[in-house]
Amino acid sequence: MSPDFDWEPVLLQCKTNVAVKVQPLLKTLKEPQPDLGRGAGGDQMKTVDLAAEKAIVEVLLQHGISFTLVSEESGIKAYGSQATDWYVTVDPIDGTTNLVRGLPFYCSSIAVSGKPLLSDVYAGIVTDLFHNVTYMAVRGRGASRNGEKIATSSVGSLTEAVIGLDLNTYKAKTVAAQLSELIQKTKHIRHFGANALELCFVAEGLTDAFVDIRGKLRTTDVAAGFLILKEAGGVLSTPDGEAVEADLDPRQTVTFVASGNPQIHKAILHLIQAT
Amino acid sequence: MSPDFDWEPVLLQCKTNVAVKVQPLLKTLKEPQPDLGRGAGGDQMKTVDLAAEKAIVEVLLQHGISFTLVSEESGIKAYGSQATDWYVTVDPIDGTTNLVRGLPFYCSSIAVSGKPLLSDVYAGIVTDLFHNVTYMAVRGRGASRNGEKIATSSVGSLTEAVIGLDLNTYKAKTVAAQLSELIQKTKHIRHFGANALELCFVAEGLTDAFVDIRGKLRTTDVAAGFLILKEAGGVLSTPDGEAVEADLDPRQTVTFVASGNPQIHKAILHLIQAT
Repeated sequence: MSPDFDWEPVLLQCKTNVAVKVQPLLKTLKEPQPDLGRGAGGDQMKTVDLAAEKAIVEVLLQHGISFTLVSEESGIKAYGSQATDWYVTVDPIDGTTNLVRGLPFYCSSIAVSGKPLLSDVYAGIVTDLFHNVTYMAVRGRGASRNGEKIATSSVGSLTEAVIGLDLNTYKAKTVAAQLSELIQKTKHIRHFGANALELCFVAEGLTDAFVDIRGKLRTTDVAAGFLILKEAGGVLSTPDGEAVEADLDPRQTVTFVASGNPQIHKAILHLIQAT
Repeated sequence: MSPDFDWEPVLLQCKTNVAVKVQPLLKTLKEPQPDLGRGAGGDQMKTVDLAAEKAIVEVLLQHGISFTLVSEESGIKAYGSQATDWYVTVDPIDGTTNLVRGLPFYCSSIAVSGKPLLSDVYAGIVTDLFHNVTYMAVRGRGASRNGEKIATSSVGSLTEAVIGLDLNTYKAKTVAAQLSELIQKTKHIRHFGANALELCFVAEGLTDAFVDIRGKLRTTDVAAGFLILKEAGGVLSTPDGEAVEADLDPRQTVTFVASGNPQIHKAILHLIQAT
């Protein structure tokens, strides 16, 4: 398959198929669920996660694409005769807990790359399935929200900023201690519970940064969101200010600070304390 | 005015008028705003907050109701010849930052009482203005969401629970220390940034608790939400397990734990450390 294959229409078809296949499941989610074991990323799998993954694979196969699926649910799986041509990294549903509970905040994330590396991601799509909002980016071509160009915010002051923060970890005490200066100085902290979508909020300028230093978030969750953020003009680094690079693998985790602009990024890094 | 006056249709008209008057302002909010000073609750007032308050007062006056307005924006103001018949406690827009930034979580809150006391609140309405969802309760008659009865969750375990937590304060270090055990043991922490609405999420069973021990949240923000939570079967207390009681006054603040059921409430109180 040509390296200049146009992924955008395929990704849009994938997200539409996810929405179609997930919709009828929403009403059954409060009923007792079958035990599907843990996904490759370690979380309890839900019927809805698997249905969303299947919906993505279905569209890719309909297009005759050979690819290696890197999924939070099924792990790494080759499809077609030239499976290493493309890596398709997915978190079929990010924010499954929100979805199951009825909180209107969950998404589907798909990233495409030529190698299984974060830095190699070439195209990405994140779909807010509740509000039917689609964020998309292709490397070098900017980022969009429902087809319209988006750009990050220019808010540089922590007293004005709205910052997303994930504290959900059994190591919360350590993480909260490292973030205590930042929490104290930030006026508006949020956590909506779907990290891929929260990266897109930064990309769109709805929030000014998203910080996840737990060492728990998987590359499958952020592969698309990172590209969308960068293409919208955002800044991304590890808490130490290094480039974020990692294998695309459902067991590979990352820590990062994702910001709308260099000024707020610098202010945040300055306040995160080393362990 | 008769003490058995039916407030429900009036409150529904108020929320509709708020939605109608706020709608045209949404597009102008990213433009520079006039400096309106600080409201009675101490926050910077926005055009949208004042428009929402005006929309509520307008409907009450159309009905010929005498009342004392207790508002986060205008403070305490008497309307009509028998202004102490009813106290109408409002946070015209809760989650103004979200609204201004385009984050889809903000609401309007109205509570009605015969005396300016939290325990005296007789009817309350909280409207999720983005999703057009209306939570309402009348004392002794249960709580509803868009007219359908709601009930709190029965989730009793912190590893299953979704818990809302507000850490937004200049005293965040102290508050985070008091909550560190709770944060560590709770699997799913959220903060959507509109506390009145987050109380209704607990009432509806979308989340299992909401904790705010900052000593910063005003009674104007929670007057309606507390009634809706209690009428839905929820449990409410101070972090020490005492009943939450306070004057309805835009300068009066409260600390509280609001839970879906006694089991999770007990688990949370047990983990909150005294100062």
